[in-house]
Amino acid sequence: MRTVTPPAHADLAEAARGLVDAVVRTELEPDQLAEVAAQLRGATQTLLTRALSQPRNLAAVGEGRLDDSGNPAVGARNPIAPPLRMQIDGEDRVSCALLLGAGYEGPPGCVHGGVVAMVLDQVMGTVPWLAGRPGMTAYLNLDYRRPTRLGLAHTAVAWRERTEGWKTYVRGEIRDADGEVTVEAEGLFITPRAARGEGAQPQSD
Amino acid sequence: MRTVTPPAHADLAEAARGLVDAVVRTELEPDQLAEVAAQLRGATQTLLTRALSQPRNLAAVGEGRLDDSGNPAVGARNPIAPPLRMQIDGEDRVSCALLLGAGYEGPPGCVHGGVVAMVLDQVMGTVPWLAGRPGMTAYLNLDYRRPTRLGLAHTAVAWRERTEGWKTYVRGEIRDADGEVTVEAEGLFITPRAARGEGAQPQSD
Repeated sequence: MRTVTPPAHADLAEAARGLVDAVVRTELEPDQLAEVAAQLRGATQTLLTRALSQPRNLAAVGEGRLDDSGNPAVGARNPIAPPLRMQIDGEDRVSCALLLGAGYEGPPGCVHGGVVAMVLDQVMGTVPWLAGRPGMTAYLNLDYRRPTRLGLAHTAVAWRERTEGWKTYVRGEIRDADGEVTVEAEGLFITPRAARGEGAQPQSD
Repeated sequence: MRTVTPPAHADLAEAARGLVDAVVRTELEPDQLAEVAAQLRGATQTLLTRALSQPRNLAAVGEGRLDDSGNPAVGARNPIAPPLRMQIDGEDRVSCALLLGAGYEGPPGCVHGGVVAMVLDQVMGTVPWLAGRPGMTAYLNLDYRRPTRLGLAHTAVAWRERTEGWKTYVRGEIRDADGEVTVEAEGLFITPRAARGEGAQPQSD
């Protein structure tokens, strides 16, 4: 997955990520908050003077490559995305470093269980891509073993379990710095017809 | 769950939500994007002149009530949160309207599967709260039946299946405007020891 976000757009999203974090944590007085809110509405208006009506994620950008820069988990131009940066560890294995701050808190001091689910869906969904068979999630089963702590380094990993035609069965885990598994998951990703084009081949093992 | 976010803070978060959406969609030129990025960094600096180091979601705010205003799914002061607004439909049933825009896109024109998971985790996790037994997710199993469309009205619903002591088994669904189920889920939520205080009682049925 090639990122096609222009550097200035990625930098804007990074600035917005810092802003999101500050909005969650700020304790300024109401009149100061109102002043900042007005600034943000002005900035929003500026940005929308030329804008897409929808981000059109995964629009083809040539050579079988897709643009996922608006994706809420990995998107370089999406301030909601941490963003996750995938590392390919082999032909059917992927991982990414995970360090989530204030905006992702569920229980006190812990990453929201739903955010963990989003991370695993994204990391696990990357595995079929590695073999040129992008898939949509058919099922995702998550077991929460222990809390995933906020502000501490974790790693998300995913690997292919087996393939049946256009179905890819994938396993995933979140591990803390000591290698302890906080959440484990299994999922099935199915390549939709529209993505069964050139370069994508069914396979079984 | 009482929201304790001051109106000015909720309004700031709402302004930031609009900004996030605009950042994802904008197509301005690099020099214009750089100008806005600089404005956002200035606003961030202002907000951080007085800020919490972490949001401390779910800090007790008295009378057995908790503050979840920083939560990334429902938090009034969290720009990542849509935010979901829960409607209590009975003593063991909850729902919320769902209309997600550009920042939540996964496959083209569809809500990201991981975002759907986050929504269901939050809505389903609300069910044990209704009975005064807040729980952490032990497992969450999601079946994706059909795409959940971006920008279209959906409803997320969750209801209690059964209770065993401090364990609450919950089911949930996302439904489109025609009532068709796009994603269904089952989950187990366990009340942690720290939350087994006054007002919280184990129960079985």
